Amino acid sequence: MLNQVQATPGTGLDAFFKADGVAVIGASDDITKIGGRPVQLLRKYGYAGPIYPVNPKGGTIQGLQAYASILDTPTAPELAILAVPVEATLQAVRDCGSRGVRGVIVLSAGFAEAGPEGAALQAELVRVARNHGMRLLGPNCLGAVNVVDRLVGSFSIALEQSLPPAGEVGIVSQSGNIGSFTMRNMAERGLGVSRFIATGNEADVDVADGIAALARDADTRIILCCMETCRDAGRLIAALDMARQQHKPVIVLKIGATEQGQAAAASHTGALMGSDAVFDAVFRRYGVLRVRSFEELLDVGHAAALLRAERLPTTDAVTLVAASGGFGIMMADAMVQAGMTLPQLADTTRALIREAVPTAGTNNPVDASAQMSARPDILLKMLTALQNDANGSTLVLLLALSLYNPRLRGVYLEALSKIRASHPDRLLVIISQGPPDAVAEINALGIPVFPSIPAAASGLAGLVRLGQLTTLPTAAAYGGPVDGVDAAVFRNEFHAKKALAAAGISVPREEVVASADDAVRSARATGYPVVLKIASEDIAHKTEIGGVALGLQDDDAVRQAYDRLMANAREHAPRARLDGVLVAPMVRGGVELIAGVSRDPVFGPVVMVGLGGIYAEILKDVAVQVAPVSEDEALRMIRGLKMFPLLDGARGQPKADVAAAARTVARLSEFACRHAADVAEIDMNPILVKPQGEGVLVLDALMVPTSRNTSAH
Amino acid sequence: MLNQVQATPGTGLDAFFKADGVAVIGASDDITKIGGRPVQLLRKYGYAGPIYPVNPKGGTIQGLQAYASILDTPTAPELAILAVPVEATLQAVRDCGSRGVRGVIVLSAGFAEAGPEGAALQAELVRVARNHGMRLLGPNCLGAVNVVDRLVGSFSIALEQSLPPAGEVGIVSQSGNIGSFTMRNMAERGLGVSRFIATGNEADVDVADGIAALARDADTRIILCCMETCRDAGRLIAALDMARQQHKPVIVLKIGATEQGQAAAASHTGALMGSDAVFDAVFRRYGVLRVRSFEELLDVGHAAALLRAERLPTTDAVTLVAASGGFGIMMADAMVQAGMTLPQLADTTRALIREAVPTAGTNNPVDASAQMSARPDILLKMLTALQNDANGSTLVLLLALSLYNPRLRGVYLEALSKIRASHPDRLLVIISQGPPDAVAEINALGIPVFPSIPAAASGLAGLVRLGQLTTLPTAAAYGGPVDGVDAAVFRNEFHAKKALAAAGISVPREEVVASADDAVRSARATGYPVVLKIASEDIAHKTEIGGVALGLQDDDAVRQAYDRLMANAREHAPRARLDGVLVAPMVRGGVELIAGVSRDPVFGPVVMVGLGGIYAEILKDVAVQVAPVSEDEALRMIRGLKMFPLLDGARGQPKADVAAAARTVARLSEFACRHAADVAEIDMNPILVKPQGEGVLVLDALMVPTSRNTSAH
Repeated sequence: MLNQVQATPGTGLDAFFKADGVAVIGASDDITKIGGRPVQLLRKYGYAGPIYPVNPKGGTIQGLQAYASILDTPTAPELAILAVPVEATLQAVRDCGSRGVRGVIVLSAGFAEAGPEGAALQAELVRVARNHGMRLLGPNCLGAVNVVDRLVGSFSIALEQSLPPAGEVGIVSQSGNIGSFTMRNMAERGLGVSRFIATGNEADVDVADGIAALARDADTRIILCCMETCRDAGRLIAALDMARQQHKPVIVLKIGATEQGQAAAASHTGALMGSDAVFDAVFRRYGVLRVRSFEELLDVGHAAALLRAERLPTTDAVTLVAASGGFGIMMADAMVQAGMTLPQLADTTRALIREAVPTAGTNNPVDASAQMSARPDILLKMLTALQNDANGSTLVLLLALSLYNPRLRGVYLEALSKIRASHPDRLLVIISQGPPDAVAEINALGIPVFPSIPAAASGLAGLVRLGQLTTLPTAAAYGGPVDGVDAAVFRNEFHAKKALAAAGISVPREEVVASADDAVRSARATGYPVVLKIASEDIAHKTEIGGVALGLQDDDAVRQAYDRLMANAREHAPRARLDGVLVAPMVRGGVELIAGVSRDPVFGPVVMVGLGGIYAEILKDVAVQVAPVSEDEALRMIRGLKMFPLLDGARGQPKADVAAAARTVARLSEFACRHAADVAEIDMNPILVKPQGEGVLVLDALMVPTSRNTSAH
Repeated sequence: MLNQVQATPGTGLDAFFKADGVAVIGASDDITKIGGRPVQLLRKYGYAGPIYPVNPKGGTIQGLQAYASILDTPTAPELAILAVPVEATLQAVRDCGSRGVRGVIVLSAGFAEAGPEGAALQAELVRVARNHGMRLLGPNCLGAVNVVDRLVGSFSIALEQSLPPAGEVGIVSQSGNIGSFTMRNMAERGLGVSRFIATGNEADVDVADGIAALARDADTRIILCCMETCRDAGRLIAALDMARQQHKPVIVLKIGATEQGQAAAASHTGALMGSDAVFDAVFRRYGVLRVRSFEELLDVGHAAALLRAERLPTTDAVTLVAASGGFGIMMADAMVQAGMTLPQLADTTRALIREAVPTAGTNNPVDASAQMSARPDILLKMLTALQNDANGSTLVLLLALSLYNPRLRGVYLEALSKIRASHPDRLLVIISQGPPDAVAEINALGIPVFPSIPAAASGLAGLVRLGQLTTLPTAAAYGGPVDGVDAAVFRNEFHAKKALAAAGISVPREEVVASADDAVRSARATGYPVVLKIASEDIAHKTEIGGVALGLQDDDAVRQAYDRLMANAREHAPRARLDGVLVAPMVRGGVELIAGVSRDPVFGPVVMVGLGGIYAEILKDVAVQVAPVSEDEALRMIRGLKMFPLLDGARGQPKADVAAAARTVARLSEFACRHAADVAEIDMNPILVKPQGEGVLVLDALMVPTSRNTSAH
């Protein structure tokens, strides 16, 4: 469906940000209309290139010469902004193509979101645009803005009062409203914006394009992204990878985290929703920080933009300072609950603090008392002692309402400015409610200011995760051979396990037999005790029909069990095709894991691992990741399970062979990629993890074919 | 230590709020000094009674006649505010007593928080005050304010600009800073305050007094409380119970929730810290809403004050409405994550919405599109349809930045005012960032406005919990007989279980025997298979020294096991006193619970119940409550366990007898109260819970004596 140009995200988006000449098709004199606003904003904010209002009536629009058609403009504009009625859009896009336009923004609504007719028209717009080598943004979108070059291809209400200051924050949002809200709030916090792009219906340009374009954009140092859906996992992953290679932090607010939110998103965007847990896993893998609320996006985004990637904290240690004991306790609670740690201060540091502020309590949190702000030199002395402490923590200073007091404001600003000069590389953040101009002064020193204790706690935890995420190794996509599988793997566990064994996964020695005599022969060869299980592709729950016999100790028991299992199967599943009975060794001991593969509608084969039995069922204690996963990644997944202590020697048990378990998960994930065309689901349950060095055994496995494969039956 | 007056919390606090006459001892002309500020604030805000500045220099202070001693004032003031140096405080308190003062506020610091000398002086202040029948607030506190009567016994910086408007919110805070911050923020949100009391060192008046006084105060309808420690559990519980009987919601920010926070609080207040989980349980039991941050205190407190107790939501159902699909998804995510539910709308409601707003999506969240605010009548029509819907949910309307637009502001205010008039009992809340005057207008309609989606989600969830908490039955304190126990219960599990059995708890038939022959006799009487366990008060971990033999099937096995166990004990625990061997039936099947009692430093005997083994250990999946607990309460504790499905028929198992388990926990808790003087800890592990109707069996139990009891050994 995509041609070569669209396959690499971000290609061709320069037209939206760096266009030489902009035509506004459907331009209006009325600056409250969609067709009037871009003309007004381009002029008001000083876009340097030619602006061509296009309107069949011609004449002048907002003081500019208007043209009846884009074909009449004196030069060929690189960008066209369309604000024409739905029915006129297709012709306008055709005209843009003929005129050599490079990018088209369709602001108008009434396309795919309005029904099947609109969807067909939208598809036609894209076809025409691609035929002409144009990128198309929208329809039903708020457009794109290059704040640095003052190119405003948008009618966002956030631009009504003023253009945000030019800066390093790039904003990519599917929803124009949420993107506008982000831009406005960033500007209100005094932070500059580089680019804004709202992708709306995403007929052509999508969020992945936006991220990739900003990853390559020299003005942008940090990318904030609000997304609802992902239409192409490969392009999203490629874009995130580009941003990582450019060392640009990406912070994503992915909405639709709950079932109800997903249902709302699906009905809103008409796109398939992938599993939210898989989105989490993908973001983690590519070093993207996922935030859970708009406020967190702003708090972390603001702080990350101030600090930039090279100054993000690499430690979760914080030293907390407040003038009030009560606020210190509140900070300690919030920071610990957000996953931060509170190291103690060195004795020398404590002595120096007491020298500066005799009334101070020198535990962490430091109860610095009102004395700390008596004079700038006292405060500076205390801050210097704290910044010199070898614990290397981030210093968090709570000012509450102090900055509203002119004398205190002077004390704090003088001391903070000096400490930043003397310790430029040590992290320091402030918690303060304002006033805004004092906050701006502190921000200008490169010191982030959080508006509340919870904001500081979640913000700092976010910065730490951002700092750590970028150090993880990149996961490679599957690049191995792609094979079909023998259809037998879907028939019974014996064939499924044989295929897994061929992929390097440990399974017990097993055999399917078709007579009681063969069962006895096989049991002897296996060694007693043995297990017998009915082998049939039509019987999923063997236990329930009496299809399993455990702990058989001798020939007689095996012979009787064979007959009983076959009889049970014939009675309780008369139409099941029976392959016979599986003879396997009776294995005991070890810890049970489960692992499996399923098909995510967005990301394709996804591998899952969790503790077996009740743990997976009640606690939902499982980890997921897009296949393939490396052994390292699988190990991190297993170590991250809540019940991991069960594998790690809890209650005096020997430590389990988690390395072998991780290897099994990695090989399963490769198997799933290799056979993705045929195998939709794989279920390995249980996997017996034996003590360290003794490996694992996959005791049962089940594979489900893709529907293509099923229908071939 | 407490006399009768102090034993009932809140008694005698009228002196701080309704005093006829106030003396300020240590009064100053300098209004920046602690001794100058109360004089200034009393005058500035128009306190109606006589104000007597007291200063040895006499003359006039801030234009008022000053007196050299409180003994010289023309009338006897009921309240005295002390701002004298530490060393002059005791004499000042004595003088207050002689003059017939009813309440003394000691603002000065330098007492218990400064060291042992200060602590001794502080104790002496209290002794003198009590001898004179005076209540003493502080020392080291920010005092008390009656906003309604403009009686300002404080030097809080929050009062510098203005007194908050008079209203129905009472504020009780140990920390003056946090209390002031709360008062200032409430006022900024346009909400009136009735009383403010900051208890500081709590030498006499504590947080419980403050809550109880506000529970009885006619001006106060809702109580916000910030606490760090609790010095007397009985008084706190009595105060919470008073508030509940008066139907006044209590919202508590209890800081020190984490170990690090507790450590900071302990070093800050010098008080013993109880377990945070026990505080949680006590708050839940008495219908108190515990919030986790200052922001949540303000958000929920503000909304609860607007709605008052009689209009709190009783359902967790919400219908969400936004003009933007993206914001609707964000709301859905946040609400569901906060525990709210999103019911669907009736078909008739959907049709009516579409009639009003043809472009609207009528799922929940409702994607109302910008059309909804085209005209007030359109919006009103949609809101009316929503409020008439039979699902009875709380309506949440997101306005984002709309109120900044004058036209939209008009539309919203008109429609909201009409819908409140037509549906006064249906709950409606708004999410909006401002502007403040528009928010105030909406608040004035009795409609809470939350500043953000997360604030609305946690705020609404808090309101629902407040609404639900008040409907729980009150727990009675233990009122039964108080007995000593036979010291034998501490000797071995046999005697411990015998005592529990006498308290109505089911234990297996068991016997301690002192010979192999007796063991065989006992085993036959019990019925095979049996278990043998070494019986010694000196051996805590029987398994580790080979002191347990399971599944013994016949006489020979019992005889051999007896000899082996005794030999093992002599070898591995040569100094242990041996009582012999316990013979018990071998019991299998069922689900294992653990339950126990421990001694909380604040709340006394606390009962705990959880799933057995690995679950308690790794998941910390336990519930706690102050003893005694009723069977109902115990059942709620068990049903609240994460792993409760294990007892409730997970994985096709029969449902376990949770009623019997709850009865066991309730009886354990009564046993603990009855014998609180002697028994410090009880551990029942495991408790076998059999299928429904078959009861439970406590298989092992251990009791630890109180240290008083131990030293009597």
